[in-house]
Amino acid sequence: MALRGPLFRLLRTELRHTCQHSRAKSVAVLGAPFSRGQKRRGVEHGPKVIRDAGLMDRLSALDYAIHDFGDLNFHQIEKDEPYMGVNSPRNVGTANKVMSSAVSRAVGAGHTLVMLGGDHSLAIGSVGGHAQQCPDLCLIWVDAHADINTPMTSPSGNLHGQPVSFILKELQDKMPDIPGFSWMKPVLSSTDLVYIGLRDVDPGEYHILKNLGVHYFTMRDIDRLGIQRVMEVTLDHLLARKQRPIHLSFDIDAFDPSLAPATGTPVNGGLTYREGIYITEEIRNTGLLSVMDLVEVNPMLAANREAVEATSSLAVDVIASALGQTREGAHASIDEIPAVKEDTEQLCL
Amino acid sequence: MALRGPLFRLLRTELRHTCQHSRAKSVAVLGAPFSRGQKRRGVEHGPKVIRDAGLMDRLSALDYAIHDFGDLNFHQIEKDEPYMGVNSPRNVGTANKVMSSAVSRAVGAGHTLVMLGGDHSLAIGSVGGHAQQCPDLCLIWVDAHADINTPMTSPSGNLHGQPVSFILKELQDKMPDIPGFSWMKPVLSSTDLVYIGLRDVDPGEYHILKNLGVHYFTMRDIDRLGIQRVMEVTLDHLLARKQRPIHLSFDIDAFDPSLAPATGTPVNGGLTYREGIYITEEIRNTGLLSVMDLVEVNPMLAANREAVEATSSLAVDVIASALGQTREGAHASIDEIPAVKEDTEQLCL
Amino acid sequence: MALRGPLFRLLRTELRHTCQHSRAKSVAVLGAPFSRGQKRRGVEHGPKVIRDAGLMDRLSALDYAIHDFGDLNFHQIEKDEPYMGVNSPRNVGTANKVMSSAVSRAVGAGHTLVMLGGDHSLAIGSVGGHAQQCPDLCLIWVDAHADINTPMTSPSGNLHGQPVSFILKELQDKMPDIPGFSWMKPVLSSTDLVYIGLRDVDPGEYHILKNLGVHYFTMRDIDRLGIQRVMEVTLDHLLARKQRPIHLSFDIDAFDPSLAPATGTPVNGGLTYREGIYITEEIRNTGLLSVMDLVEVNPMLAANREAVEATSSLAVDVIASALGQTREGAHASIDEIPAVKEDTEQLCL
Repeated sequence: MALRGPLFRLLRTELRHTCQHSRAKSVAVLGAPFSRGQKRRGVEHGPKVIRDAGLMDRLSALDYAIHDFGDLNFHQIEKDEPYMGVNSPRNVGTANKVMSSAVSRAVGAGHTLVMLGGDHSLAIGSVGGHAQQCPDLCLIWVDAHADINTPMTSPSGNLHGQPVSFILKELQDKMPDIPGFSWMKPVLSSTDLVYIGLRDVDPGEYHILKNLGVHYFTMRDIDRLGIQRVMEVTLDHLLARKQRPIHLSFDIDAFDPSLAPATGTPVNGGLTYREGIYITEEIRNTGLLSVMDLVEVNPMLAANREAVEATSSLAVDVIASALGQTREGAHASIDEIPAVKEDTEQLCL
Repeated sequence: MALRGPLFRLLRTELRHTCQHSRAKSVAVLGAPFSRGQKRRGVEHGPKVIRDAGLMDRLSALDYAIHDFGDLNFHQIEKDEPYMGVNSPRNVGTANKVMSSAVSRAVGAGHTLVMLGGDHSLAIGSVGGHAQQCPDLCLIWVDAHADINTPMTSPSGNLHGQPVSFILKELQDKMPDIPGFSWMKPVLSSTDLVYIGLRDVDPGEYHILKNLGVHYFTMRDIDRLGIQRVMEVTLDHLLARKQRPIHLSFDIDAFDPSLAPATGTPVNGGLTYREGIYITEEIRNTGLLSVMDLVEVNPMLAANREAVEATSSLAVDVIASALGQTREGAHASIDEIPAVKEDTEQLCL
Repeated sequence: MALRGPLFRLLRTELRHTCQHSRAKSVAVLGAPFSRGQKRRGVEHGPKVIRDAGLMDRLSALDYAIHDFGDLNFHQIEKDEPYMGVNSPRNVGTANKVMSSAVSRAVGAGHTLVMLGGDHSLAIGSVGGHAQQCPDLCLIWVDAHADINTPMTSPSGNLHGQPVSFILKELQDKMPDIPGFSWMKPVLSSTDLVYIGLRDVDPGEYHILKNLGVHYFTMRDIDRLGIQRVMEVTLDHLLARKQRPIHLSFDIDAFDPSLAPATGTPVNGGLTYREGIYITEEIRNTGLLSVMDLVEVNPMLAANREAVEATSSLAVDVIASALGQTREGAHASIDEIPAVKEDTEQLCL
């Protein structure tokens, strides 16, 4: 009962304040070299190749205070048998606990956070930690896949295909007690979530999406409506009633494999470069981006070095666009068109 | 006169019944290793490379009864001089007679038929045989080219650029008696046909299209209207007055050469992957697809193995999409989200 | 005062007549092997590779009288120190004076002119010379860049990033007296200009665009509105009040680098092939194209020969489309569908 009294109201005010602060001109980057949410090694090198593609320089050009928090350190748990068909549950659960604390601290300290995966199972902790500071956040999940299998419906048992099922309150009674996840509580309702880019949805996932009435836009929907309308509906659905912090969870495999070949589960017919940038521009323009995940860049799955560089550069472009890089030019601090100062100049010559 | 009496009505009822049956859950695949409708060898290997790209497995996943009828056997006619500039008339005519019988039998037996070419001259027999069972069919021709030259207008004399002129009743008096085609009667009116994807139309073809008032959507029209609207108008034009069987004749060169390089007459500026899939999804969603041709995959014209595989995989994707593979997930037979059965499971461990 | 009298009116009538004549069925091609507007050598070979890709044959097929005026001859000025940070001012200025005379003569002689660059600084002379004959021309600038830096705002000092600042009357008082340009007067107002394809705009440029209220469509605008609407608004803005000659200045880097890799300043997320062709088709359909620049093809910056050929072929396609090549077929002089002349033909066999 005490939590409904003055102290609770004070806490809520505090939280709300932090969340707005987090959208100020300070950006923190956090790497998460983790790959146990799936079976293909290499995705743990994602943070390195994205940084090597020039991320920090690009963000510096955007007039932010930039902080590189380096990479999280994940201790490997040796004894980690599958549980109910779920692979590496204790490693994934523990890594996400670490992630959750780190994200909560960064957001609490007033940063807009960019999390570099690693595989998409990390969103459990990223969204979870974000929600500790901003319980009213909304989630935009850009991905070829819905990643909403429960341990009971997952065909593969890989947790990078299940993070959303850990996040949603409506699925709580369908979730077994997976070892490593006792710290995690579901934090969002299905109405707080919109998917963009889906084109490979498992049967169980399809059923969950329909059953919960989740808003999602498949590539077919983008073909039908156009990306402009998709973003309009997405932002209206999430923000029309109130402005609230946005968590953007962007899986690089949302892009077409011709653009982002270095990833673990590519699916044909994905987003164009311009559609991806349009999505992040529109999110940026709300002024509400609070945390962004960029996951599933796997440099070991590319045919050659060019493919790795293309994928990493694309990741940098998407992050820079989400944080304010625009296609119509930088809004620089020039007050008027410079006048000719020929006399002075000629004297200098 | 007898044909207007009770027997005729009985026959018509019979035909109508067959055509509806043909849209049931049984799919037959028929290969047509034939290349005499044009001069570049290699397109006769189309059926093999499309099957090698996994066609049958993909169709099996769609919950159909699948029948592979193997490949048609075309006897080569040695003495086959050009006639009025038309190349290989007897070989093409005879092959299409064989095709026509095979398609008619398959549709009559209640299958939805997928014909794998082979060059596009095979559509003469495919549409002809289909029309024997379903005289009220409509035709959607997806292609970079209109393939509607008559022998008198054809610049090349190749019959793969002329099939539509054999099919349309309005052109009957413009058609000479080509050897090998005495069995063939035109079966459709120009209002039964819509083209999608045109971008390389010969002068004579342009004149025919305008003269007959054929409905066609060039790539420019797709740029103007968007593929969503193009399909809406196409299906409305063909089906608004009555539901009727659809014959989809899909030339792989409708796609952009960057996606389908292994083909004989590529033209820049073609369909994107997503537009192609959108076309087949929309046709699938009518529930009326009865016969589909997938033609002009030529593995001998690709620069390398990757190009062949890209083109063949694309053919498989298009066929699977036309037959029900969706981008928003499989409509599987799951009745509710699986509950947690932890006790039992844990006992098993 | 005399210039406001009868002589002036006569001259104006004369000019108007020439500009309409220039849109007749005579096309002249003029090469400009010039690269001093920027620092990367190779762009002076643009005219050669575009011609080698078959330009003249393609234009001949369009039923024009075609004149190849060959390449302009630019004398190099040895002593050409930077002036106020501007590189090679005397060479660029003098080359553009030559260009201006040549364009004026060609347009005056009644040709629709195609200018093959060379770098984009050449547009100073091309637009300038065009305006001598057609002072009421309007300018459509298709480019990834705005090329509107003044010498005072230019980050690089390269004149290929500044041509528009020399052309616009509103910027005259912001322009220093650059050596080599004393012959040049600004010829257009900012309302006579529309940009299409921008996606890399410098801070000073952004300020100028906003300050002058220039109409421009970035790639984001194309994503939002679609290319159909962009062209509709562009042509309406420029032509609604009166029909007037169009100068199309097309930088090949407007296209996505995947399509036009052989260029000096590629920027991701450019025009698709189909969007580029749509732009030129729409301009063609006005009947008002008077001069077209095709610039910045640089064969020395491509990774391999295929990349050069792709870029040059694209340039040819764009030019041919601007001059009347259509995707819905050639409007040939066939009056009716050819009848069968079997008897005669068979006699001939």
